[in-house]
Amino acid sequence: MILKRQVRMKHKESLYDKLIEYGLSNYYPYHMPGHKRSGVGEGPLADVQRMDITEIEGFDNLHHAEGILKNMQDEAAKAYGAQKSFYLVGGSTTGILTAISALIPRNGRILIARNCHKSVYHAIFLRGLKVSYLNPELEGEFGVPMPVNGQAVERALKAEPDIQAVLITSPTYEGLVADVEGIAKVVHEAGIPLIVDEAHGAHFGFADMLPESSVAHADVVVHSTHKTTRAMTQTALLHVCSDRVDAEEIQRYLDIYMTSSPSYVLMASIEIAVRELAENGQELYETYRKMQAEFLEAAEKLRYFHVLQVPGVVQDPCKLVIGSRGIPMSGQELYDVLLEKYQLQMELCQGHHILAIMTPYDRSEGFNRLLKALRELDEEIASGKYADESAGGLPQMIPDNLPVQQLLIEEAWRRGVPMPLEDCEDRICSEFVYQYPPGTPIIVPGEVWNKEQIAYVKRLYEMGYEVLGTQKIKNTIYCFVIR
Amino acid sequence: MILKRQVRMKHKESLYDKLIEYGLSNYYPYHMPGHKRSGVGEGPLADVQRMDITEIEGFDNLHHAEGILKNMQDEAAKAYGAQKSFYLVGGSTTGILTAISALIPRNGRILIARNCHKSVYHAIFLRGLKVSYLNPELEGEFGVPMPVNGQAVERALKAEPDIQAVLITSPTYEGLVADVEGIAKVVHEAGIPLIVDEAHGAHFGFADMLPESSVAHADVVVHSTHKTTRAMTQTALLHVCSDRVDAEEIQRYLDIYMTSSPSYVLMASIEIAVRELAENGQELYETYRKMQAEFLEAAEKLRYFHVLQVPGVVQDPCKLVIGSRGIPMSGQELYDVLLEKYQLQMELCQGHHILAIMTPYDRSEGFNRLLKALRELDEEIASGKYADESAGGLPQMIPDNLPVQQLLIEEAWRRGVPMPLEDCEDRICSEFVYQYPPGTPIIVPGEVWNKEQIAYVKRLYEMGYEVLGTQKIKNTIYCFVIR
Repeated sequence: MILKRQVRMKHKESLYDKLIEYGLSNYYPYHMPGHKRSGVGEGPLADVQRMDITEIEGFDNLHHAEGILKNMQDEAAKAYGAQKSFYLVGGSTTGILTAISALIPRNGRILIARNCHKSVYHAIFLRGLKVSYLNPELEGEFGVPMPVNGQAVERALKAEPDIQAVLITSPTYEGLVADVEGIAKVVHEAGIPLIVDEAHGAHFGFADMLPESSVAHADVVVHSTHKTTRAMTQTALLHVCSDRVDAEEIQRYLDIYMTSSPSYVLMASIEIAVRELAENGQELYETYRKMQAEFLEAAEKLRYFHVLQVPGVVQDPCKLVIGSRGIPMSGQELYDVLLEKYQLQMELCQGHHILAIMTPYDRSEGFNRLLKALRELDEEIASGKYADESAGGLPQMIPDNLPVQQLLIEEAWRRGVPMPLEDCEDRICSEFVYQYPPGTPIIVPGEVWNKEQIAYVKRLYEMGYEVLGTQKIKNTIYCFVIR
Repeated sequence: MILKRQVRMKHKESLYDKLIEYGLSNYYPYHMPGHKRSGVGEGPLADVQRMDITEIEGFDNLHHAEGILKNMQDEAAKAYGAQKSFYLVGGSTTGILTAISALIPRNGRILIARNCHKSVYHAIFLRGLKVSYLNPELEGEFGVPMPVNGQAVERALKAEPDIQAVLITSPTYEGLVADVEGIAKVVHEAGIPLIVDEAHGAHFGFADMLPESSVAHADVVVHSTHKTTRAMTQTALLHVCSDRVDAEEIQRYLDIYMTSSPSYVLMASIEIAVRELAENGQELYETYRKMQAEFLEAAEKLRYFHVLQVPGVVQDPCKLVIGSRGIPMSGQELYDVLLEKYQLQMELCQGHHILAIMTPYDRSEGFNRLLKALRELDEEIASGKYADESAGGLPQMIPDNLPVQQLLIEEAWRRGVPMPLEDCEDRICSEFVYQYPPGTPIIVPGEVWNKEQIAYVKRLYEMGYEVLGTQKIKNTIYCFVIR
C-alpha cells in the first residue's frame, strides 16, 4: 500500500521536548512572561506555564525564523508538499488577512465564493477591494452550499477581467470538497493566483481515506490546525505552494497581523499535530475509518435521520451532517435536545440538521452515544412526539440569489441607521447579516435588501435562530440601512 | 492604609474553574478543537488541552460577549477603572492595530513617540496614515529614551494641526513613566484622543509602590498582560477610558484583527491574572518590594555596575536596567556572560546595559543569583579582565536626530533595492531598520539616510549587535533604498 503523504522526518529536535527540558533547567528568567514559569497556582494552567516562554536564546523568533522554528516550518512544508509553510498563532484569520493583503493591491478586485469566512470580508474591507461572487448552488435535501466549480469560476473571470485573485472555501463547513485542480487550471489560465481557505482540511492527504490537499494545486492554502488535528485552538498554517506568490510579501503581512509575542505553547502544539499526521496519519485514520463505517451502517437503518451524502462530490469522512428536511424539528431543536437530554455538544445547527465534526481523537463512545440518541429520537418522531410546524420550512442555508451590490463594503459598513426589517426593501444594507456559525453572510454591507433576503431573515427568527447584524426589540426585527 | 485599586469583586463564576469542571463532565464534544479534549499524548500540553474548548453552550463568544466572557471583561474594566475592557488573545499587537484603526480615518495623521512598538508603524502603513514624531530625549548615563512630555506634545500639535490622535509609549521598555495626566490635558485641549501603549504597565495601580495606570487619563490604553502579570504569552487587554472613543468601533476592528477562534486557555489566564492583581496586588508587591529593596541596597556597593535611576522621573520598580557607560563591556557581552557563565537569561541588551524584567512571581533566588553574578563581574572588571575597546562607544539606543521624511511609509516600504550602507546617504530608505528587542526604528521607510544614521548602524555592527532591515554579506553591510 502506498501512503499518500506519509513522510518519515528526521527530527532535528522537538520544540515541545525542548520547552519541557528548559523548564527543568537551571536557567533563570529575567524576562517576560511575568509568571516566570514558576507554576503559580495549581492545575493544568500552572503546569503548561512552565513551558510558556518568549523569544530567548535557542528558541528562535517566529517573525525572523532561523533555527528551531524555521526547522518546524520546513518540516510542515515537507509534510504538506508546500514550497514554504508558516505557523500561525492567530488562527486562519491571520492567514486569510495575510494572503489577501499580499496577493491583491489596495483597491483591487477579488473573486470569492459567497460562503467564505468573515475574515475574507474583513480583508476586503481593510484593503478597500472590489468583490465579485461565486454563489454556490444548494444541495437539495439539506440545503447546504455545494462546492464551487471550474465552469462558474471561468464565467466569472470572463465577465470581470480585472479580477486579480480568486479565493474559495474547500472543503465547505459541511465537508464538501471542490475540484481544486480544475478550478486552479482555470484561475492560472487567467494568469492570477488561487487562494484556498482549507481551514477544515488540515488533515487532508495524510491517509488513503481522506481527500487530497489543495496544496498540490492552489497558490496559497490556509489550514486551521485546531479544527481537525490535535493542535490547540487558535493555531493554523499558511502554505505558499507556487512561484506565483512572493513568500517575503506573505512574511511581511504576517509580521503586521500576527502578535509579536507568539505563544510557544501554541507553536509546540502545531509541531506535535503535524508530526503525528505525517508519521502516523494512515494508522490513525484506519482506526477512525472502522468506527465511522460502523456508525454509517447503523445510521442507514434510521427512518427519519439521514447523513449527508452528495453523489459525485468528494466528501470529508470526518464531517457528519445529520438531519433531513423530513424531520419535524429544526436543526436548532435537534441541537438542543441532543445537548440537554443527551449531553452531546454539536458543532452547529442549521435548517433541519446538525453538524458533528469527528476526528481520530474521538473515542467509539462518541459514535455510540450519538447513534443511541438518534435511534431514540427516530422512535419518538415515529410516535409523533416532535410533530411541529417548522418541518420543511428552511431547506437551505442562504437564499438562492445574491442581492445587488451598490456600494463597496468599505463605503457602507457601519454607516447605517436602524430600520424595521419590513421597511428595508430597496435600501442599502450597512451590516453583515449572518448566522454564526458558520458565518456565511445573508447580506453584505453595500448590498440592497430585496424580498428574498427579508423573508429569509424573518423565517430564521421564526425558527428560533439568532441572526447577527440584526436586532429584535420587542416584536420588531431591526436591520441597519443607509439613509 | 488605603489601597490604590484593590477591588473586592463578586465572582459570578470563574472561567478557569468552569473549564476544568466541564472537562470532567459527561458532555461529549462533536466540535472543534480536533483533539477532542481527550488528552492525547502526555505531559502539560495534554493536560491543558482538556480545558481547550471552542464557543459552545455556556461559554459565550468573545466577539459577541454576553455571558461569562462579558462578565470577565466587565470585571477587568472595574479592576482598572476603565469604561470598558476587551480581552485580547493576539497580544498588544491586536490592541494597537485596533486602537489606531478605530480612532483615525484612513489617510489621516497621527502623532507618535518615535520609540513605539513596530505594531504602531504597521498600523500606520495599513491605514495609509501620515505620521509626525515625538523624538524622546536620551538619558545621559545609559542612553535610553526618556518618556515624552507635555510641552513636546503641545509643540507638535501646534506645528501640525491636522493631527487626529496621539500615541505614546508609557512606561518605556526600560520602565520610565510619562506624565500621562499632563500629556492627556494637552491632547484633550486639542480636541483629540490619546492612546497609551502601556504594554509594560498592566500591573500599574495595583499596589502603593507602583505607578498610577494611564487608564485614569488616556482615552485608550493597551496592556500586555503577559509581560508583567501572570497571564500567558500573547494575552493583552484594551481599555476604553472615555467618551472620546466609540467602543463599538473598537469592537469592529477587534473582530477584524483578532482570530475568530480565540483560545479559552489564554482567556482563562487573563482572568486569573486580573483577579489576583485586583484582590491581592498590594500583598504580592509588598513581598516583591522587600526582595527588590535588598537587591538595590546591595547593588549600590558595586563599583562598576549601576542600576538606572532617573531623578524626577517615575519609574517602574519592576524593571532593572543594569550596566553603565563606564563598564568595559557592551550590553551584548554582559548579556552573553550572564547567560553562558551564570545561566541568567536577560530580557534584552542595548548599548552598555542589560534589562531584567522582575515580577512578584520572581523568587529571591532570582535576585540573589543576579547579585552574585554582578559582584563577580565587578571584581573581574576591577582586575582588568574585561578591558576592551567598546567602552563608552554607544551611549544611546537611537540617534539624537530624526531623519527627514520624504515619502509615506505606505509609499516606500519594500519598494527598494539593496545598496552598500556607505552609499546610502541622501537616499530614501525602504525598510524598517532596528534592533529587536526593543524594536525602536533607527530609520523608517520613506525617510532619508543621513550621516548620523549610517554611522550608528555601522557602530551597532562593530559592537556585535544584529540590525534588522539590513544584511551583512561578506564584509559589506547592505541597506535597502529607493532607486
